[in-house]
Amino acid sequence: MNKSILLKNRPTGKPSLLDFEITKIDEPTPKNGEILLATKYISVDPYLRGRMRDEESYIPPFKLNKPLESMVVAEVIKSNHDNFKEGDFVSGMLEWKLLQTNKGENLNKIDTNLAKPSAYLGILGLTGLTAYLALKHIGKPKNNETLVVSGAAGAVGSIAGQIGKIKGCRVIGIAGTDNKINHIKEKFGYDEGINYKTTDNMQEAIAKNCPDGVDVYFDNVGGETLDAVMMNINRFARIINCGAISIYNEKEIPTGPRLEGILIKKSALMQGFLVRNHVEEFESAIKELAGWLKDGKLKYDETIIKGFEETPQAFLDLFEGKNTGKMVVEV
Amino acid sequence: MNKSILLKNRPTGKPSLLDFEITKIDEPTPKNGEILLATKYISVDPYLRGRMRDEESYIPPFKLNKPLESMVVAEVIKSNHDNFKEGDFVSGMLEWKLLQTNKGENLNKIDTNLAKPSAYLGILGLTGLTAYLALKHIGKPKNNETLVVSGAAGAVGSIAGQIGKIKGCRVIGIAGTDNKINHIKEKFGYDEGINYKTTDNMQEAIAKNCPDGVDVYFDNVGGETLDAVMMNINRFARIINCGAISIYNEKEIPTGPRLEGILIKKSALMQGFLVRNHVEEFESAIKELAGWLKDGKLKYDETIIKGFEETPQAFLDLFEGKNTGKMVVEV
Repeated sequence: MNKSILLKNRPTGKPSLLDFEITKIDEPTPKNGEILLATKYISVDPYLRGRMRDEESYIPPFKLNKPLESMVVAEVIKSNHDNFKEGDFVSGMLEWKLLQTNKGENLNKIDTNLAKPSAYLGILGLTGLTAYLALKHIGKPKNNETLVVSGAAGAVGSIAGQIGKIKGCRVIGIAGTDNKINHIKEKFGYDEGINYKTTDNMQEAIAKNCPDGVDVYFDNVGGETLDAVMMNINRFARIINCGAISIYNEKEIPTGPRLEGILIKKSALMQGFLVRNHVEEFESAIKELAGWLKDGKLKYDETIIKGFEETPQAFLDLFEGKNTGKMVVEV
Repeated sequence: MNKSILLKNRPTGKPSLLDFEITKIDEPTPKNGEILLATKYISVDPYLRGRMRDEESYIPPFKLNKPLESMVVAEVIKSNHDNFKEGDFVSGMLEWKLLQTNKGENLNKIDTNLAKPSAYLGILGLTGLTAYLALKHIGKPKNNETLVVSGAAGAVGSIAGQIGKIKGCRVIGIAGTDNKINHIKEKFGYDEGINYKTTDNMQEAIAKNCPDGVDVYFDNVGGETLDAVMMNINRFARIINCGAISIYNEKEIPTGPRLEGILIKKSALMQGFLVRNHVEEFESAIKELAGWLKDGKLKYDETIIKGFEETPQAFLDLFEGKNTGKMVVEV
């Protein structure tokens, strides 16, 4: 028995379950040179919302009535390929199917002794790589600087904050519940946290929590939180535009205060970051991340939702902030 | 007889002549170790508007009822200082006075054989340095890339466009009159020009003139022109926020489309540029600019207004686009 999850409609505004369809499909047979993969874990990520739009971007849009795809950890259950054997675990950009065949291209074998399989969708996967490489290339946090992270309890944010601590920064997190604020301070070592949902004046709250101003802002949300941070940046500040979950579901580009005047006045930098521009650095980055993980310098959360058919709901829950850390579906 | 120009009021919105006062002052006498300077040329620049506000910035605000200051070329008419002699020409940040004394600090002697004195307020002064160093550090134009310059006929823009051509770019200029458009193509070698005042849809006009998209945007104006360019940027585009004359006179930060989504999608960079962060490179930059000037690769315009007392009006005229190239007052 095999199943697939298809994109049924291109959502306008907030996606809903009606935009997905779960359908029974045939069980595939691997040809010569192919492997048969059984999906074990599926990564759901906010950026997938962008691929639901019918517009050119850095990756092609999803096709209507075709399977969605994301990063997946799968087990090789049959191999007609010299490089893979039964029982190997791999990660890669794979379709939302219980079973699928693959030619063994663009797959990474993962070491399940180093970390559990789902970690390769999170701290040792694209989210960990995103935090690490965005800070390396754009944020460049220095000892004694102040780093602010939005989506601070999220998959990328929680790692970004910890790397900030490793680099010697004062680290302030922004998140949407008091539980998350407590959590990021207790588990991830954030110095302070701000609950944006219960804070009337974010600009003042950031000023109060960042008495020396903001040197690096790791932005996962965009929108009004970004505005409030911008009013507190220091000269030569670096703003990493890593995500903009607050505006992903908008039908038109929303408006906000023009930031060019502040960028000039502060000689500041804002730069969009896409982890897939840095594929050649993944191996060395995973090595350093795995080292920190082993030394206990990095901790991570994952929210594991069980059941293949729950994948669409798990994706939708991202926009409600229901996850703590990396959201993963266990099949 | 000596005169000074003071800041009489802090303007709200657009400045007017009423914000300035021209006053007679005593003729100063240089003490031991001082020189007496006679002002020859005064630079008026849009950024001075920022110093009229009572707020912290990269340079302190002007004080009420005190002389304004800007870059000035002056002649040494009396010297009690070992390093200067009568007849020397110097440039530096000096007060708006006919005569003033100086301890010889932060002054540069200029070579009036290499270029005429007013050039040291323009192409070999802060405007030329701004164009050169902003492209060097942020724009990084490469052969066959497309460079768009706003304020293309202005002091900084006209030099930025020409450096783009030297670097092998296709260069498109945005300016506000048909005369300026013709001029930048004929004199400065721009490939195409767009008159933003007579163009209904700037986004389309930029798309049409930049069939390969925009790789580098040298922005001197901010606001809606910036928005229109942003809709046409390529992956890895670099946006230099050098000036934002379109919003300098606004009382509140104006709103516009949020740009974080585009920055992410295009892995693009926006960075504020202030030439005074790069003082240590001025000497080598002037050398290269002077070389290009000598080889006929760089041309420049200046609008020279005669008369010390015309300085406030010359400044106001900048915001009406009445200058072509560097606006300088000849005393």
